[in-house]
Amino acid sequence: MTPTDPYPLLSRIHSPEDFRDWPVDELPALADELRAFLLESVSRTGGHLAANLGTVELTIALHYTYHTPHDRLVWDVGHQSYTHKILTGRREGMPTLRQKDGLSGFPKRDESPYDTFGVGHSSTSISAALGMALAARQQGERRKAVAIIGDGAMTAGMAFEALNHAGDEKADLLVVLNDNKMSISPNVGAMNRYLARLLSGPIYSSMREGSKRVLDRLPPMREFMRRAEEHVKGMITPGTLFEELGLNYYGPVDGHDLEGLVKMLRNLHSMEGPQLLHVVTHKGHGYEPAEKDPCTYHGVGRFDPERGVQNGKGNAAPTYTEVFGQWLCDQAAADERLVGITPAMCEGSGMTEFAQRFPDRYIDVGIAEQHALTLAAGMACEGMRPVVAIYSSFLQRAYDQLVHDIALQGLPVVLAVDRAGVVGPDGPTHAGSFDLSFLRCIPDLVIMAPADEAECRRMLSTGFLLERPCAVRYPRGRGPGAAPEEGLIPLPLGQAQMRRQGRRVAILAFGTPLAAALEAGERLDATVLNMRFVKPLDEARVLEAARGHELLVTVEDNVVAGGAGSAVAECLNAHGVSVPLLQLGLPDRFQGQGTREELLQDAGLTADDVEAAIVARLGTDQACARPAGRVLSK
Amino acid sequence: MTPTDPYPLLSRIHSPEDFRDWPVDELPALADELRAFLLESVSRTGGHLAANLGTVELTIALHYTYHTPHDRLVWDVGHQSYTHKILTGRREGMPTLRQKDGLSGFPKRDESPYDTFGVGHSSTSISAALGMALAARQQGERRKAVAIIGDGAMTAGMAFEALNHAGDEKADLLVVLNDNKMSISPNVGAMNRYLARLLSGPIYSSMREGSKRVLDRLPPMREFMRRAEEHVKGMITPGTLFEELGLNYYGPVDGHDLEGLVKMLRNLHSMEGPQLLHVVTHKGHGYEPAEKDPCTYHGVGRFDPERGVQNGKGNAAPTYTEVFGQWLCDQAAADERLVGITPAMCEGSGMTEFAQRFPDRYIDVGIAEQHALTLAAGMACEGMRPVVAIYSSFLQRAYDQLVHDIALQGLPVVLAVDRAGVVGPDGPTHAGSFDLSFLRCIPDLVIMAPADEAECRRMLSTGFLLERPCAVRYPRGRGPGAAPEEGLIPLPLGQAQMRRQGRRVAILAFGTPLAAALEAGERLDATVLNMRFVKPLDEARVLEAARGHELLVTVEDNVVAGGAGSAVAECLNAHGVSVPLLQLGLPDRFQGQGTREELLQDAGLTADDVEAAIVARLGTDQACARPAGRVLSK
Repeated sequence: MTPTDPYPLLSRIHSPEDFRDWPVDELPALADELRAFLLESVSRTGGHLAANLGTVELTIALHYTYHTPHDRLVWDVGHQSYTHKILTGRREGMPTLRQKDGLSGFPKRDESPYDTFGVGHSSTSISAALGMALAARQQGERRKAVAIIGDGAMTAGMAFEALNHAGDEKADLLVVLNDNKMSISPNVGAMNRYLARLLSGPIYSSMREGSKRVLDRLPPMREFMRRAEEHVKGMITPGTLFEELGLNYYGPVDGHDLEGLVKMLRNLHSMEGPQLLHVVTHKGHGYEPAEKDPCTYHGVGRFDPERGVQNGKGNAAPTYTEVFGQWLCDQAAADERLVGITPAMCEGSGMTEFAQRFPDRYIDVGIAEQHALTLAAGMACEGMRPVVAIYSSFLQRAYDQLVHDIALQGLPVVLAVDRAGVVGPDGPTHAGSFDLSFLRCIPDLVIMAPADEAECRRMLSTGFLLERPCAVRYPRGRGPGAAPEEGLIPLPLGQAQMRRQGRRVAILAFGTPLAAALEAGERLDATVLNMRFVKPLDEARVLEAARGHELLVTVEDNVVAGGAGSAVAECLNAHGVSVPLLQLGLPDRFQGQGTREELLQDAGLTADDVEAAIVARLGTDQACARPAGRVLSK
Repeated sequence: MTPTDPYPLLSRIHSPEDFRDWPVDELPALADELRAFLLESVSRTGGHLAANLGTVELTIALHYTYHTPHDRLVWDVGHQSYTHKILTGRREGMPTLRQKDGLSGFPKRDESPYDTFGVGHSSTSISAALGMALAARQQGERRKAVAIIGDGAMTAGMAFEALNHAGDEKADLLVVLNDNKMSISPNVGAMNRYLARLLSGPIYSSMREGSKRVLDRLPPMREFMRRAEEHVKGMITPGTLFEELGLNYYGPVDGHDLEGLVKMLRNLHSMEGPQLLHVVTHKGHGYEPAEKDPCTYHGVGRFDPERGVQNGKGNAAPTYTEVFGQWLCDQAAADERLVGITPAMCEGSGMTEFAQRFPDRYIDVGIAEQHALTLAAGMACEGMRPVVAIYSSFLQRAYDQLVHDIALQGLPVVLAVDRAGVVGPDGPTHAGSFDLSFLRCIPDLVIMAPADEAECRRMLSTGFLLERPCAVRYPRGRGPGAAPEEGLIPLPLGQAQMRRQGRRVAILAFGTPLAAALEAGERLDATVLNMRFVKPLDEARVLEAARGHELLVTVEDNVVAGGAGSAVAECLNAHGVSVPLLQLGLPDRFQGQGTREELLQDAGLTADDVEAAIVARLGTDQACARPAGRVLSK
């Protein structure tokens, strides 16, 4: 520590042990340093800013009062875990955050013993922490398990499933409800209104004025605590909903009052059984631009902290998400049966303008993917035409609802599957590696993968006009820049597009890997087909290509296992056509984190990779040049 | 109607119109007839008995007071819909119930306009009915939507997601909570305890004594109702949990008191906004054996109503489910890290003995598949070895939790996937057609499919010893009768088993279709491999088979799309081996209902079918006899 060290307190901390014996009144200065460090660090790397600024005090207080890593902290979603990472020995890694081979933007078990559970998707923390608490009981270990979950995440069904179970068990579990009145978008739903009512009550108001007075009513000694419990709760807890589910409710408390938090958490640590602490925090706390606009500062790229994030995207080509958003507005204007449904991803899915222009037909169900799809099914039964915008990896949450409620009944619901394929800095939890595989096995589902923005719009129009379930899956970010046409013009169902007529090799590209396929095809003078439809597959084109080429090559940004390339293999096998087939796609492992370009390179899906793979196969593959069936028969 | 007609009232009913103008006091006689008819009919066809006996009065009262099919009734799960079917023109079809081409055991949209939403899995009804209510509002239609949901189904997350949304909307939705204090097994969880507390309160007790007096406090006129609402609720509703979520709570009411139900429902029909009516029914009501043992009478085969269902399975070979149950006990006795987790399927999954012998390590989380898997993940983090028993089609509910919480973290959780493949009379909602496809794309997951009972036990032992996630998927019912060995002996990971050495053709069988493959192989003198592992695939064996045969044939009881056969295709393509491959499996459509044998025949998976398909391919497939790569190159 030198006099010029801007973070003199942080410099002394390599693990929570290092500050656990500090006097409580030194902690606010630590919080100030952390906030300054977060702002400096995230403005350089990009990342989740607002949520982390909001949880600085809560994180300090938890590590200060709970004996981590012996006690288990489970962060829900985990994008609020930067302070946790900094306090647990990873401050020096923060410049690598969310980069290839760098620190993950989420807790990750192999990164630190303090990261007890890997997260990324919402609402898993209570289940996981309860599992840890039950394991501790089974093993006779005295340790605490703590789930820290936002109010937005609380609307998801699995959080309720876990609460319902936790309330029934007597496990040592603390649920910290971090109530910042937002998920990523402003919250919706009855639970949210309920929490707001708790905050508007007289108790919370009086606490804000002098929280210590109320907190002092919690006696520090456990034996007395237990006897007094009913009485105390009667005084300070209006949390009947959680009480009805069997959790002892405490709060609401001010999540930026370190002294109050520490006192409360010390009390809770000494108690047994399932507890819920309702903490009120403010997203972006301490950095005015983020406080005023937590949506913009939820996830940010690099920015100048002095100037703040500069909006205005200039003249850049629209992202796929924006292409979807524009199509949704145009299609809604043309057809009043359209309703747009999002599970709490209004901005992320590009639905902001739609929500403003068509408020009666815009439905945000909160973080509730399962309900989103079955609600859509119910509406489709009545002649509406629901469009559900959902990220590929979150669609995994609603898989049964897609199979059982939509596809089995053949209901006309359009799934706009964003963030399909390679995703980027959010890493494996947010990767869209599997959707073609888990969708393709579903009967009667139409699956489209656009190769560019113009095709994306046409596919959405195609899906909307089909009287059956369909999914259009497109990647994060920008495409090659093909400007969409204005109309709502469908594509012919199940027809591939010939993009290049070549010889010997035919490359069958599914979705955005078409660009790499075309480049490789050009160099190799190969035929290139833009397949467009993963299901129904253009079997005639596939068989034609098989007849006219020595080698077929499929390229996709889904895992090879069960993906679009396997659809081609199945088609060939069903027709008794045996031709060499090279299946290129994502490898059989979870994606890492990095830029899209880095990940595509890792996966071997650049134009160079495609070319090299084809050359290698043509050069060494004996099968290509030998009679497949006859030579080896005896 | 003749004097000897045992069902004179039912004979007059072809649609709810036919009894809607009957005086209320004639309805109890109708209920008696229905109950007698149900008993007679279900004892002949088999089916869900106890739930249907419990909802006779509720169903009558709903069709009597609501203007079906204009008003929409959505039955949750739907196994309680027999009375509904009988009252809506399908009485004569009841002898065909759950049989091939017969009436479905669940509501089904193409069976009747009264079946507004197809069901089978639990907890979808509130979402679907809310979708219908929102559609009606959008369309300016005045109609009611009613979800009828059991207390067991209420523990699933998606029911909560839907309640949370419904309470926030002002849609015309009635949720009828059919509280029979059971799902299929006795209920668990805090919600259940909460409902029990509601029933133990003084209000319900007084209602049981004279329900009319309390009901009369509900004024019939809507205008007055609205003004009086707050007051009325204060008097009769202790349902704060639902009230907190924004639904008006009414009840509890006696679900077997027709007059009271009719009066209550008439009032509710005249009101607007989201409402919840808590109805108490008794599973098996009116048939003493079923009242006493609702578990046994949940789903029954044929039986003599006079004698009741006769237990005792005699000396029959154990089912796969029983093999699992025995293994679970043996493995638990050998390793105290084992915990057994079920989402409300204790009996169905064969865990009854385990639950009795190892109560501390038995966890029933209620109908909460998502929570079950993430809870298991949390326990696995702490060194426990969770075994989750789950049906193939219900695993679809927990897909994201498997990908994101278990597989991505490489946690040692064993999934015992029952009812995989062809299932039977429950039809498409319960079919296990897809698991190999949606599991196979998940990296690092071990997937095993036993060909017989002995192998099932060894695979479970294998999975338990692996320090990584794995699934053992096995079918409903009995296998070929291979008695399991006593020990806990693992199989070598990823190794197939040579069962028959033949020539020209090699059949690669995955799971129970091995029997058909062996039979066909015998007739054709083909090589037959028992593949055992879908992932990791025994690539060496596959390549060896490809080198030594003219034609490879894969057989599986999963859809071909993305299934085990495609794993073989991917392996061959990855190694540049081009050999004719015939992929046999379930076709690309939803399974029908019928016996397992009928469904296997439909799918073309009998020994005769396998043989015929191979002969056809050998005979006509030009590709088998032509150089695949060279002839067509120019």
